Amino acid sequence: MDEPPSNAPGPVAGGPIPKAVASRLSLYLRELQHLIEQGEETTSSSQLGGKLGFTDAQVRKDLAYFGHFGYPGIGYRCDKLVAAIKKILGTDQQWSAALVGAGNLGRALLGYKGFGRQGFRVVAAFDTDTTKVGSEIESVRVYNLDQLSDLAKTLRIRLGIIAVPASAAQGVANRLVAAGVEGILNFAPVTIELPDTVRQVGVDLAIELEQLSFAIVSRAEGS
Amino acid sequence: MDEPPSNAPGPVAGGPIPKAVASRLSLYLRELQHLIEQGEETTSSSQLGGKLGFTDAQVRKDLAYFGHFGYPGIGYRCDKLVAAIKKILGTDQQWSAALVGAGNLGRALLGYKGFGRQGFRVVAAFDTDTTKVGSEIESVRVYNLDQLSDLAKTLRIRLGIIAVPASAAQGVANRLVAAGVEGILNFAPVTIELPDTVRQVGVDLAIELEQLSFAIVSRAEGS
Repeated sequence: MDEPPSNAPGPVAGGPIPKAVASRLSLYLRELQHLIEQGEETTSSSQLGGKLGFTDAQVRKDLAYFGHFGYPGIGYRCDKLVAAIKKILGTDQQWSAALVGAGNLGRALLGYKGFGRQGFRVVAAFDTDTTKVGSEIESVRVYNLDQLSDLAKTLRIRLGIIAVPASAAQGVANRLVAAGVEGILNFAPVTIELPDTVRQVGVDLAIELEQLSFAIVSRAEGS
Repeated sequence: MDEPPSNAPGPVAGGPIPKAVASRLSLYLRELQHLIEQGEETTSSSQLGGKLGFTDAQVRKDLAYFGHFGYPGIGYRCDKLVAAIKKILGTDQQWSAALVGAGNLGRALLGYKGFGRQGFRVVAAFDTDTTKVGSEIESVRVYNLDQLSDLAKTLRIRLGIIAVPASAAQGVANRLVAAGVEGILNFAPVTIELPDTVRQVGVDLAIELEQLSFAIVSRAEGS
């Protein structure tokens, strides 16, 4: 079980958290939620790291960014750690999102159960295809894109999810920004330009596969 | 236009390429392919960086990992740079992939045009749902999961894409490994265990949204 780091040099509790650490926090959170589902109340950095392929030193260092959650002889309390990580990731809040693009990918995203588990709720979908407008997909209504600005206010939409072709993505992003969203998750395979006040995360599925082929060939070539 | 770095300290051409650099190479590749489609023959590190929000120093440093592609007064030749990046990422080769899970997400992935553009080809889909077996989705046939091992050999499948629920993911991963795949792209929101010889990239859509909310709240809190 863990002895939390005491006065070792390294990350300072309350300091800014690097993006790489934040993405590992998401993985810890997912594992902790699994452990809780299985009835576990405590965990250790070696258990947590072992499941994810990280060393326990890495886990301790990451968790030290936001204070001391370990108890000597007990390890970490899963529920406290979950609450602390959620606060850092912002998922202790509810986030309402608008999905733009009700094609195959949009449908898949609307059917995706994982969003709700983490506090995200897609409250409306938008499309320019009038044959889709008015329909419901997975209990989410599809509206005309022209209604975005009005509905964003009524439904308190804070996030936009772009699932349209690359050629339409920047135009949709501009409309989402005008509608007041704080962040955009962009599935279109193109980099969109946003004002500094709006955050974006891009998910390009071809790039994910490229990173896989890179991992295979770079290992094959030795080093 | 760029003067490529000459004997400045930093990355060594031919040395191992860090993952963070590899993921930026994917972004450069995407931009270069857009530029070529638009009829551009050359680019500069500042043009490339500007489109992606990176400094030109960052672009030059990243490209220096694999030798000198810049020409003083001309910049970078787009076609040469594309070829060099593809070689590093392994996408100068053809990769045949099997998709497991023909639900909403699987359908979206089969309809996704971006894979083919980068040299990836989903040659077969698999499901345990016998009502789906025998059907075709986007011209890809759905087979019974029991046929995976045989078909993997016949179709020379090198990659597996997991689009099944979390509870089924490890079992599917084991079957893909037994069928001889070299790498797995895992969309199930769970960490799967693989032998050291098989690479994996995980895409958890809820985690992508969490990283977006993190970017929003961490900025909002200052620093």
